[in-house]
Amino acid sequence: MTDVHEVFDAVDVIRTKRDGRTLTDGQIRWFLTEYTAGRVADEQAAALLMAILWRGMDPRELDQWTAAMIATGERLDLSGAGRPTVDKHSTGGVGDKVSLALVPLVAACGAAVPQLSGRGLGHTGGTLDKMEAIPGWRARLDADEMVRILRTVGGVICAAGPGLAPADRKLYALRDVTGTVESIPLIASSIMSKKIAEGTDALVLDVKVGGGAFMSDVGQARLLAETMVSLGHAAGVRTTALLTAMDTPLGRAVGNAVEVTEAEEVLAGGGPADLVEVTLALAREMLALAGIDADPDTVRHDGRGLRTWRAMVAAQGGDVAATLPVASLRHVVRSPSTGFVTRLDARAVGVAVWRLGAGRARKEDTVSTTAGLWCHAKPGDAVENGQPVLELAVDDPSRLPDALAALDGAFTIGPEPPAPVPLILDRITA
Amino acid sequence: MTDVHEVFDAVDVIRTKRDGRTLTDGQIRWFLTEYTAGRVADEQAAALLMAILWRGMDPRELDQWTAAMIATGERLDLSGAGRPTVDKHSTGGVGDKVSLALVPLVAACGAAVPQLSGRGLGHTGGTLDKMEAIPGWRARLDADEMVRILRTVGGVICAAGPGLAPADRKLYALRDVTGTVESIPLIASSIMSKKIAEGTDALVLDVKVGGGAFMSDVGQARLLAETMVSLGHAAGVRTTALLTAMDTPLGRAVGNAVEVTEAEEVLAGGGPADLVEVTLALAREMLALAGIDADPDTVRHDGRGLRTWRAMVAAQGGDVAATLPVASLRHVVRSPSTGFVTRLDARAVGVAVWRLGAGRARKEDTVSTTAGLWCHAKPGDAVENGQPVLELAVDDPSRLPDALAALDGAFTIGPEPPAPVPLILDRITA
Repeated sequence: MTDVHEVFDAVDVIRTKRDGRTLTDGQIRWFLTEYTAGRVADEQAAALLMAILWRGMDPRELDQWTAAMIATGERLDLSGAGRPTVDKHSTGGVGDKVSLALVPLVAACGAAVPQLSGRGLGHTGGTLDKMEAIPGWRARLDADEMVRILRTVGGVICAAGPGLAPADRKLYALRDVTGTVESIPLIASSIMSKKIAEGTDALVLDVKVGGGAFMSDVGQARLLAETMVSLGHAAGVRTTALLTAMDTPLGRAVGNAVEVTEAEEVLAGGGPADLVEVTLALAREMLALAGIDADPDTVRHDGRGLRTWRAMVAAQGGDVAATLPVASLRHVVRSPSTGFVTRLDARAVGVAVWRLGAGRARKEDTVSTTAGLWCHAKPGDAVENGQPVLELAVDDPSRLPDALAALDGAFTIGPEPPAPVPLILDRITA
Repeated sequence: MTDVHEVFDAVDVIRTKRDGRTLTDGQIRWFLTEYTAGRVADEQAAALLMAILWRGMDPRELDQWTAAMIATGERLDLSGAGRPTVDKHSTGGVGDKVSLALVPLVAACGAAVPQLSGRGLGHTGGTLDKMEAIPGWRARLDADEMVRILRTVGGVICAAGPGLAPADRKLYALRDVTGTVESIPLIASSIMSKKIAEGTDALVLDVKVGGGAFMSDVGQARLLAETMVSLGHAAGVRTTALLTAMDTPLGRAVGNAVEVTEAEEVLAGGGPADLVEVTLALAREMLALAGIDADPDTVRHDGRGLRTWRAMVAAQGGDVAATLPVASLRHVVRSPSTGFVTRLDARAVGVAVWRLGAGRARKEDTVSTTAGLWCHAKPGDAVENGQPVLELAVDDPSRLPDALAALDGAFTIGPEPPAPVPLILDRITA
């Protein structure tokens, strides 16, 4: 181990990567420690990030980079939960309310699920924004509260505190303004540093692929998944990834309150087939990694999943009995012909719902809990001329024109149903 | 022409270059204007510079980049000089006092030489630092004074004011701390933006190649020369480049006062052969570009060159009659054997003189005018065992050990003289 107090020169570190050489452990730890402390300048970190985007990082270098990001903060100790811990992370999709049903289902099977989550930015929603549609529910817990709820209820969805991988907070903001987001090592280390620091024993990654996802290329998504699985194992976290399709919204509801309601339908044994399929596939992976032999579909039908959900919500101050209000102004988009929906573009739907007010353009924006959209018909569904395909709900009518503009050309009606496409595209293990 | 008020997004500009695409004229002008005005952040400029170092710039893009750098400031009008204007720029070497003799020689032949110069940083000296060894001489002139001296005397060596290509001042400082110095388009645009803004009609570039120069690879140096010649012509400045060797110090004196004295020897018809050869070769190129049919060697021998030098110095307040003091503490490095000097390392000598106090590590450092070094023997010279090879002059004896350490292994004595090597390696024209 290099002494963390060894002094390096920022320009030397940048040049090393710029010239295609491998950063030493000492260089990595020094740079990230000093940058997080404000002693290496943003412009130097920006140059290094661009050099990493260009040259990449080899697996050992990336393990060190991720470990050094974690070492800038604390790593939670979840041993007090008294159950095997397992979490899930999704790279983000449209209508992706999977966590809301998944966490209580897996918890009801006996695992502890410590889901530290984020807010949405851009066209994909954030789990915390959805949960905050529940009156009284609070995202922020301290570590003791979190462990107590994990022990008693089994599942927690809450905000990641500022003490976890603070280097990532700074680097993420910097990448956003310097055109250095699209780098697999930087994406992988950003996600995995927070998940490893969260203290989970095991992790299932839902890497979304398609027009509505961050990555539309399956090869790139597979590489990201492999990189993250490898990083997890190097840090002692058993990790598996599923590649799942994100060309069309998941389920039928897109927004905040409307997605909570749909997740509750899944927990009550119903819900749209695609959402159920992805949720159960991820739940089975999580339970396998946690070493728990239980069927998540059983707890979905026998009421235990819903009971755990209600206990989770109540433990964080949420009103489990509340009916969640949805915006009363409605606008219906109808099929222009009779036939089959052959395409419903996830990104267009995501942008429309964002413009309705359900998402944010900047971190400091507030979101509307009541705005949303329902997909009344999805690819493969037969529709009559004039039948509703999409229904929008919004409180502020001035937002409607821009949202509708995003939906221009968002779906296609054809004479034949499209060939069925798989939802689960691949499975990546160590 | 794109409207300069058109608004672009800094991240889009960075991504364009990052992905290997060509920046538009509008993007370039917007980015450099906003960066110079402080409305684009240093971290964004750093990311763009690293992307440029990675991806390069095509010739048209680089012409625009350079023009946009110039457009952030003023371009001098030297028409009041009443003579053809021609300047020289050197990429920097050890013992490179060429400008001090060259400017008055070419001016004495009838041209106006508007040499806006810089200070030294690192192991190569700066022309202004050398001139400031002359008591009373001042580097700063306003544009009117400069034109008046060009008209009456013909030659000016002075500091480039802050109004010339201010983008370069910011970018240069940023490149220094972000590992983005070593990019041919960035080096070429930095040099040429200032030289074009200075208003000269013609320019000769002395691109130094070898261990004591910024570039040791002749292929890279040729590419830099070609790039700069092309940039000059695109901006309407007739430009030629010579590639000259910089493996061993030029002349025998290295420092500030000692180099002024050696330049005066050249102007008086003497001086070391290598220094005279490079000075005359550059003078002939300058006169050819200025359309002046005169022999610079004649004015070196008939006293006109020295007269012009004295008039130049006096016009800027310098005491032309002063004897320049040299530090009195001397240390001689002697040959350990009898034979021929086969190698005398320019970089080692440059570093030694820098450590004696003649150069600066940071912009704000002051330099010693009196510290210096003489090469009593140079490659090809026969030496006896114990004969002086190098002589160091320093006021502060505490500086001597570090300087001597730099000279460890700096020269080699062999049984045969080395094969002669050419000083002028190549000539690049449009």
